[in-house]
Amino acid sequence: MSQLTNVACCQVSLEVGKLAANREACLSAAARAIENGAHIIVLPELAASGYVFGSQEEARALAEPVSGPTISGWTDLASRTGTTIVGGICELGEDGNLYNTAVVIGSQAGSQAGSQAASQAGSQVRAVYRKAHLWDTEKAVFTPGSQAPPLIDVGETRLAVMICYDLEFPEWVRHPALAGAHLLCVPTNWPRFARPDGERPMEVVRAQAAAAVNRMFIAASDRVGSERGVDWVGGSVIIDPDGWPLAGPAGEEATIVMAACDLGTAADKKISAHNDVLEDRRPALYRQVIEVHSPERHW
Amino acid sequence: MSQLTNVACCQVSLEVGKLAANREACLSAAARAIENGAHIIVLPELAASGYVFGSQEEARALAEPVSGPTISGWTDLASRTGTTIVGGICELGEDGNLYNTAVVIGSQAGSQAGSQAASQAGSQVRAVYRKAHLWDTEKAVFTPGSQAPPLIDVGETRLAVMICYDLEFPEWVRHPALAGAHLLCVPTNWPRFARPDGERPMEVVRAQAAAAVNRMFIAASDRVGSERGVDWVGGSVIIDPDGWPLAGPAGEEATIVMAACDLGTAADKKISAHNDVLEDRRPALYRQVIEVHSPERHW
Repeated sequence: MSQLTNVACCQVSLEVGKLAANREACLSAAARAIENGAHIIVLPELAASGYVFGSQEEARALAEPVSGPTISGWTDLASRTGTTIVGGICELGEDGNLYNTAVVIGSQAGSQAGSQAASQAGSQVRAVYRKAHLWDTEKAVFTPGSQAPPLIDVGETRLAVMICYDLEFPEWVRHPALAGAHLLCVPTNWPRFARPDGERPMEVVRAQAAAAVNRMFIAASDRVGSERGVDWVGGSVIIDPDGWPLAGPAGEEATIVMAACDLGTAADKKISAHNDVLEDRRPALYRQVIEVHSPERHW
Repeated sequence: MSQLTNVACCQVSLEVGKLAANREACLSAAARAIENGAHIIVLPELAASGYVFGSQEEARALAEPVSGPTISGWTDLASRTGTTIVGGICELGEDGNLYNTAVVIGSQAGSQAGSQAASQAGSQVRAVYRKAHLWDTEKAVFTPGSQAPPLIDVGETRLAVMICYDLEFPEWVRHPALAGAHLLCVPTNWPRFARPDGERPMEVVRAQAAAAVNRMFIAASDRVGSERGVDWVGGSVIIDPDGWPLAGPAGEEATIVMAACDLGTAADKKISAHNDVLEDRRPALYRQVIEVHSPERHW
């Protein structure tokens, strides 16, 4: 019997440096999504600090530990509602470095339809992930992560998380797929680039392909609002394992994108009588390719 | 100074078993593309034999060596016109096995705009590639290839070739990108699957993403014509390094898709002041992922 999970992306309007307003925008959008039935809520990347930092010092002033107020607020909401919340912060690490980080908050039992015990179970930070592929001037601010995307079991379903530009590295997306993730949650900040009339943002196209080649749901939550000359494209989207948008891509306004997902179907990787998108891989050949062509150039 | 290369995909109508008619359909479409200015012509997968074999015996009866009449015909046309021709055959290997094979035919100097010496240089089979990822009942007919996609230098540009389902394995597409290919030529037979109204075939979406994440041109040439109950989706397309279609995707009729491509631009992998789609990779992390998750299950 299939069980539907309502997945929501909260595409909120943010402004760099406005910690209190950004936290409030995220919490109120998440609460609204939950009122509308959401079980899993995905918030943007750097959802409290905003994105376009003027300097590392500015970013540091806006950073907070995982135990800080942004995550506390999300944990409180997740606890009260029995939901799972995924979102990004500017993390001040215990080592003093800054990380572009996403967290997954919830209870082990919670956040699937019908799991009444969720709110009693208590919510907590279940995973912390630090962005491994940094975009543009992020390289001057953040230390890149070096741990694989975490896997988080919620009831019968397995979630994974990565951040924005990470999704453009198919090798990285393979990891959660091979590890059995049903849904990849992707907090993002997608800048708007020129594109031909009638075309979706290429970020959405790449996300569709990532979902299809792995037969995995993907929920990407962008932000909107102009910030120091940078516009975001919106485009928040929930994609099914065939690669088709179930909801979205959104436009460039603040909105909530939500879809009822039969997440368990992502366990089936078969695409014909004799094909399975993961088992058809030729890892021995790929290893050879990596050895030949991939000196570690930048890290 | 940029130099434009006209790349054409010949989306021909084929029928399984009709060797002479299929060869003629390919040659006449290729000749028409050349009359229209094409320098590089991509033909479909299994362009002489057709696709839906009733048995391995039938496939064997339609197979030919690389020295056979299909390739001879393409070589003759390439020699007379100074062009590069890429297309697929049902190959009878020297080892007696059948392979789903693509060849690249041309001269080292030839097939770019302005290279007058091309036709004098003489054309030959410059590369033979055997499909590494077999689709559905192909597994009962063909031996999978185990060599990486070949790189072929034509004048200043580097071509690569893979076949149909190969393109759905991002690890495989990385190989020619890392090896400096500007244009990936992809003979295909894309069956038509149901898709939501208004959507492109997912095969095209995946090809767009493959081009974008590698900043490489991709020319995918499909066939049309119903064959033993299988319909093909058409969708032949020439995609630029940003992931946008320059020409196509075609519909479901026989046609030629052609675009003038500044192939040298694919050498530039930069996408921001501080990002390069290949140098931003984290191969040490990917190796770890492959080791943990990728037992060689099927081969």
